[in-house]
Amino acid sequence: MKSLRPLVRAAALASVSKHIDHFSRFSPSPLSMKHFLDFGSVKACERTSFKFLRQELPVRLCNIMKEVSLLPDQLLSTPSLQLLQTCYTQSLMEILEFLDKNPEHQEVLESFVEVLENVRNRHNEVVPTMAQGVIEYRQASGRRDPVTDHNLQYFLDRFYTSRISIRMLINQHILVFNGNSNPAHPNTIGCIDFMCNVTEVVQDAYDSAKLLCEQHYLGSPELELRHNNANNTREPIQIPYVPSHLFYMLFELFKMSDRGGGVPFRKTESLFRYMYSTAPRASMEDQHRTPLAGFGYGLPISRLYARYFQGDLNLYSMEGYGTDAVLRLKTLSTASIERLPVFNQTALRHYKLSLEADDWCVPSKEPLDLAIHRMVK
Amino acid sequence: MKSLRPLVRAAALASVSKHIDHFSRFSPSPLSMKHFLDFGSVKACERTSFKFLRQELPVRLCNIMKEVSLLPDQLLSTPSLQLLQTCYTQSLMEILEFLDKNPEHQEVLESFVEVLENVRNRHNEVVPTMAQGVIEYRQASGRRDPVTDHNLQYFLDRFYTSRISIRMLINQHILVFNGNSNPAHPNTIGCIDFMCNVTEVVQDAYDSAKLLCEQHYLGSPELELRHNNANNTREPIQIPYVPSHLFYMLFELFKMSDRGGGVPFRKTESLFRYMYSTAPRASMEDQHRTPLAGFGYGLPISRLYARYFQGDLNLYSMEGYGTDAVLRLKTLSTASIERLPVFNQTALRHYKLSLEADDWCVPSKEPLDLAIHRMVK
Repeated sequence: MKSLRPLVRAAALASVSKHIDHFSRFSPSPLSMKHFLDFGSVKACERTSFKFLRQELPVRLCNIMKEVSLLPDQLLSTPSLQLLQTCYTQSLMEILEFLDKNPEHQEVLESFVEVLENVRNRHNEVVPTMAQGVIEYRQASGRRDPVTDHNLQYFLDRFYTSRISIRMLINQHILVFNGNSNPAHPNTIGCIDFMCNVTEVVQDAYDSAKLLCEQHYLGSPELELRHNNANNTREPIQIPYVPSHLFYMLFELFKMSDRGGGVPFRKTESLFRYMYSTAPRASMEDQHRTPLAGFGYGLPISRLYARYFQGDLNLYSMEGYGTDAVLRLKTLSTASIERLPVFNQTALRHYKLSLEADDWCVPSKEPLDLAIHRMVK
Repeated sequence: MKSLRPLVRAAALASVSKHIDHFSRFSPSPLSMKHFLDFGSVKACERTSFKFLRQELPVRLCNIMKEVSLLPDQLLSTPSLQLLQTCYTQSLMEILEFLDKNPEHQEVLESFVEVLENVRNRHNEVVPTMAQGVIEYRQASGRRDPVTDHNLQYFLDRFYTSRISIRMLINQHILVFNGNSNPAHPNTIGCIDFMCNVTEVVQDAYDSAKLLCEQHYLGSPELELRHNNANNTREPIQIPYVPSHLFYMLFELFKMSDRGGGVPFRKTESLFRYMYSTAPRASMEDQHRTPLAGFGYGLPISRLYARYFQGDLNLYSMEGYGTDAVLRLKTLSTASIERLPVFNQTALRHYKLSLEADDWCVPSKEPLDLAIHRMVK
């Protein structure tokens, strides 16, 4: 039997690769907030959701696994990336088990929920694990050129967006169909509050940031909160949204505001870059700090949350004055549609290392000698 | 003799084409504000400037003429583009005449200034002529797809920047070496004020916009002007700059501010697109209006002026509140360096029509049927 094991393993790997090729040929199907709400309304049908997810989850997993497979070998061979790939493969195979199961059987639906819970828990540490892998890769390879940085930023934006979307699908199915509605929050369907009170979340996020701020600095600036509902100035602003996403973004912005004085304009985009210099493990072990705090992932991931439902997060900085952070969210449930990465030729092209000449002159650092300055391209 | 003429003409054209190929192989040499100032200082030497320009002007002309030649045939064949090409060719040939002239001869230097004046005047109407050509092309071809729009925007940004830079070189040489210094403005070297008082130009631009505004609307909003010189709060803000460029940009912004109420966020970038719908000729004939006003070129060209010396012009709009326009300029004469288009492979690629698939899912306009939604890429 022993001699057969490598063969079995090779056959299993070949089969995984075949599945990835197959499912990555499909485009993910972005859902609108309205779709998510319909899933949890009176029209909700667990069988429909099951049949959708057993196809859609493999499609989303395989689309991003294709992009993972295009990362540099030195990154793929780090222990962190090996762990991630095992993790994704395992989850994919568990979900694929349901492709030929009968949706009419209650035990099938129940075991699907169990598998989704396993998948969700297995992927809890994906963000710091990926961050760790990137750090290991950069330390080993010493690569810090702009092209590598750009490609990694491109990949991480897509990878983390994919993860946000997969967790959203899984959470909704689990929360809506596990039979326990949440009487404390009658407006919620799964993790969506279809009348999310924006002002309340702002206040919550401020209070939490204030607490953190006072622990560290023994003081904190006051919040001056004004709301302006253009549709009806007397009504609160209520939009269908995921309160935890909104809280994450606002908390991150409130933590940021203590920098004061404005960020140099040329540096605002760099605030959205994933930092690789500090190890994430340290802050993960510190129980008193929020997850991910302190290693430069807060802002880029906040922007991904905003963009995930077609919003955006922009920083407008005036050096010497301060920085305005503007968070834009869609208010209509039909306009809040998932923004999902899709693996195709355009994406593929991004992973092919290329150094393109600038189509605008790059001024020389040397003083220009007007007598002998001719440069042939 | 008659039968020889077509031959002579063909030979002349072949020779032009050879020159364009030759000079477009060189990169333009961006000058800093400091270079421009040095040209007009005690160190100024007309011969050095002459020797620089007789090479640099052909390089800049030929770099952009190469890009003109890549425009769609239907655009190149419009009467406006035919006129422009003749104009550029004529100016190129006139300047090339000086390549083998002796800089030590005063009459050579004098006739060079004359030629530069001719070139400048010949190119006065280049902006509306190009705009007219684009309108003719779009009316004839009916092309309004996003790729054509994008390529035209790309070209026009580069073409107009090239023109700004060529006029800057020509104006400086004429003004510095024509022997007439400007006693009313002792701080100016050519068209550059090396202590340009920003607050004064803001006030001037406001006053002009106010006049225009009152003619049209019988009223105008007040200006609330504050200046904050971070280096020394008591001193005025003075930077080496071209006051006419600064005036152009500010006047354009002041004219804009009467829109009020904010522009929808998704539309701010479209404010920088060159408009093709209204004919420029009409407003050109109206003596009471400023040149170019009223056909949608003011903002895009203002941004080109800002970027020409490594600054930028950004609009931050909050719908329902208003729009902040932020104009950033370099304050150091060594940092204000010309931003010039260069013709190379990267530029070439932009003119090759391509429709690339989006690497993020484009949500379907159709309602999603969760049962039968699979889309193969």
